[in-house]
Amino acid sequence: MFPTPVSMDTTEFRKRGKEMVDYIADYFEQLDKRQVYPDVEPGYLRPLIPDSAPQEPESFEDVLKDVERIIMPGVTHWHSPYFFAYFPTASSFPALLADILSGGIGCIGFSWAASPACTELETVMLDWLGKMINLPEEFLAGKDGEGGGVIQGSASEATLVTLLAARTKTIRRVQSENPELTDADIMSKLVAYASDQAHSSVERAGLIGGVKIKNIPSDDKFTVHGSALKKVLHDDRAAGLIPFFFCATLGTTPCCSFDRLLELGPICNKENIWMHIDAAYAGSAFICPEFRHLLNGVEFADSFNFNPHKWLLVNFDCSAMWVKKRSDLTSAFKLDPLYLQHCHQESGLVTDYRHWQIPLGRRFRSLKMWFVFRMYGVKGLQEYIRKHVKLSHEFENLVLQDKRFEICAEVTLGLVCFRLKGSNELNEALLKSINDARKIHLVPCHLREKFVLRFAICSRTVESVHIQFAWKHISKLATELLKAQDKQQQ
Amino acid sequence: MFPTPVSMDTTEFRKRGKEMVDYIADYFEQLDKRQVYPDVEPGYLRPLIPDSAPQEPESFEDVLKDVERIIMPGVTHWHSPYFFAYFPTASSFPALLADILSGGIGCIGFSWAASPACTELETVMLDWLGKMINLPEEFLAGKDGEGGGVIQGSASEATLVTLLAARTKTIRRVQSENPELTDADIMSKLVAYASDQAHSSVERAGLIGGVKIKNIPSDDKFTVHGSALKKVLHDDRAAGLIPFFFCATLGTTPCCSFDRLLELGPICNKENIWMHIDAAYAGSAFICPEFRHLLNGVEFADSFNFNPHKWLLVNFDCSAMWVKKRSDLTSAFKLDPLYLQHCHQESGLVTDYRHWQIPLGRRFRSLKMWFVFRMYGVKGLQEYIRKHVKLSHEFENLVLQDKRFEICAEVTLGLVCFRLKGSNELNEALLKSINDARKIHLVPCHLREKFVLRFAICSRTVESVHIQFAWKHISKLATELLKAQDKQQQ
Repeated sequence: MFPTPVSMDTTEFRKRGKEMVDYIADYFEQLDKRQVYPDVEPGYLRPLIPDSAPQEPESFEDVLKDVERIIMPGVTHWHSPYFFAYFPTASSFPALLADILSGGIGCIGFSWAASPACTELETVMLDWLGKMINLPEEFLAGKDGEGGGVIQGSASEATLVTLLAARTKTIRRVQSENPELTDADIMSKLVAYASDQAHSSVERAGLIGGVKIKNIPSDDKFTVHGSALKKVLHDDRAAGLIPFFFCATLGTTPCCSFDRLLELGPICNKENIWMHIDAAYAGSAFICPEFRHLLNGVEFADSFNFNPHKWLLVNFDCSAMWVKKRSDLTSAFKLDPLYLQHCHQESGLVTDYRHWQIPLGRRFRSLKMWFVFRMYGVKGLQEYIRKHVKLSHEFENLVLQDKRFEICAEVTLGLVCFRLKGSNELNEALLKSINDARKIHLVPCHLREKFVLRFAICSRTVESVHIQFAWKHISKLATELLKAQDKQQQ
Repeated sequence: MFPTPVSMDTTEFRKRGKEMVDYIADYFEQLDKRQVYPDVEPGYLRPLIPDSAPQEPESFEDVLKDVERIIMPGVTHWHSPYFFAYFPTASSFPALLADILSGGIGCIGFSWAASPACTELETVMLDWLGKMINLPEEFLAGKDGEGGGVIQGSASEATLVTLLAARTKTIRRVQSENPELTDADIMSKLVAYASDQAHSSVERAGLIGGVKIKNIPSDDKFTVHGSALKKVLHDDRAAGLIPFFFCATLGTTPCCSFDRLLELGPICNKENIWMHIDAAYAGSAFICPEFRHLLNGVEFADSFNFNPHKWLLVNFDCSAMWVKKRSDLTSAFKLDPLYLQHCHQESGLVTDYRHWQIPLGRRFRSLKMWFVFRMYGVKGLQEYIRKHVKLSHEFENLVLQDKRFEICAEVTLGLVCFRLKGSNELNEALLKSINDARKIHLVPCHLREKFVLRFAICSRTVESVHIQFAWKHISKLATELLKAQDKQQQ
């Protein structure tokens, strides 16, 4: 017989699993007492652990002790109520429970047959979510729709996958009209577009796909209008280029501005340009009727994406993407070796999600959506969004009441862009003093030539009291900074 | 005040988390009693659940009840000891515990500053693992190495990322020699290579990267030799193409064959071709000294990848990738908007993993490696690999003793390719009767013109008794099939 190495049997797992659940519960209960941003310097961890893996097994106790000793001092606590950096990343107990289940089942859902439940729940959950934000019927899978949704790992992948699908579709269309042109001829003329405020992942998708990507200038509110796109298209067509993809942004990363879908969409449709909408952060808000108008014009889009793992209480990773024509994706990627084929795959009912994404393997991520949607209910999720939006307006009002500061972009959802009236250097110094003090954590952005501080409502447990604390703290540091500056100038 | 919608507080999470841990423990204890492959038909799930998300919250009990009622009947049980399909996907209790922790911390480690522990533990764990398989020093990060490792989501992504890095590097090199050539000119001449036995993801990487990809013919043992590559290179250079990337496979998906690195590596080095090694499945075995020789020649490679999430007890996703020159990756992808910059990033000690991969966000996946490596120890992991290899030879011997069957490829690790001597139709019928009976689960492959059954040792808990059962079952079905066939022919 061959002995199985058993580092842990089920009895021990029951015990240790419960200890780990308690550790996580303790972590959340005490999170407001941990310093939000760590003190460590680059390279801190290596000296704390051995050079190589141990030959003999170590105990769970030893490992868990080291979590507190080695890991926690180097963690940036994204769920601390004092974390206001980047954009939120979602965390909720129902999602954590679903992830435990997903890990336990541990199936790899690359095809329908590889785990039917994994594929089918995902299709239905994307329909649920699509209905929650009132997506046009064409984006839903339903029982026999041509569209449908998929969970991607991140918005970057959604942008890349749709850009590649558009690339293939355009190459085929152009070739059918000009059979003498090679793929390479056409590729060299393709050009994709996005706002000058779009996320860096759009430029990166162009880089990966080997196509030109150009910025469309946004206006003074950081919004792209139809007229701006039209002008660039006109020039590019005249120069012999082939426009094929436009990524509109709803809720830009720097300042949460919104491109004008109702102007842009008809242009894209008319000009045979695939319109993808990246609403990575803002998309979650569209479950509230009062914010749904921001999505008007989605009916002109070919694909739409937002991240429930940002703001809809579904832990990372869960980036929801829909397309109107699933065949646009599958025909761009479909490769079908025998070891991945199965007897049901020619049925119209069957979805093989491996043709919808970059990786082959995929976890059972739709469980998280199912648990969260059911245990919060749509009303609970709406309340959650509304609470964050109210808190951002509370912060905005505090800024507006202080004449030393200015608001730099319209506050629509949970992000406030603000700065001290004055130089970029002054604001860089303010941000440095905020982050050096380690009481709260923020990151900056550039809005045109201006260095701006971004205050994003992030934590599930953030309350008015934390907003008030943060503002008082910023205000005090600003006072100190301005005083020191006055002294220097004297 | 704004009420927080609380679907679940920490007290309730403690209770429900422990129930979920028990559910998972029960699942594993009873897994051999569940039918390995489900009976459901495509579309089974949609009628079982509502058309849209509930408005009001539902209880955890209701959701958990539905897991057994709706989800489990549609699950393919990848960790059942009767599952012999595809390749293994890893599952272990230490990894599950680490994933609970990773979910709780819930940080997004795209840059060093976004969570220093997340980045630094990953770098050190990839060094640990590199040492376990005795990778050349150049692939390790160490304190000031130029190489280093990263966790990708899947081998597909590793192949894509390295192909893209090679593409950029080659375009720049060619342009420095021929400044008159545009990116598009060069792209149209680039050609990548892989064995005709390579995984479909290699062809897909070429498709995504917009470059030609060609198969190199393997020999009658499904192995690519240097001579085969040389011949194709010679022809392609003569035709004006620019060879730039070769993906060698160690452990092909159809039959676990191995390309000849020691012949291929020097050719690639001499011809300025990036050699990437995909050892997705086989790589884990290299932690055993007796299998390490299969990796000889890795010293010629530019990058190397294998999946601890397949065979090293680290739950999906965890695909380990190393490069000799990290600057090859970062210079292919680096885009640095202000909201992602941080004050440490110019330090040589700091790794921003977002420049190493396709997505921006990333979970704290190195915790799984740390827990598994420590709680099994290298010796425990080696025993685990050896046990699987012994079980595959046990199955191989059973096949060899039955004159009706043939072994179709050398059994080196945990995969046995076999078939009934006879037609493809006969073997297709055998596979169908095996999978229809639902006692065990297998998938097929093509080896040249032959339809072949793949028997992969997969489950963490598979034992000799399950191998014996599987063989008796297959043998009995074969007897029935041959009998029915005889009758038909009479």
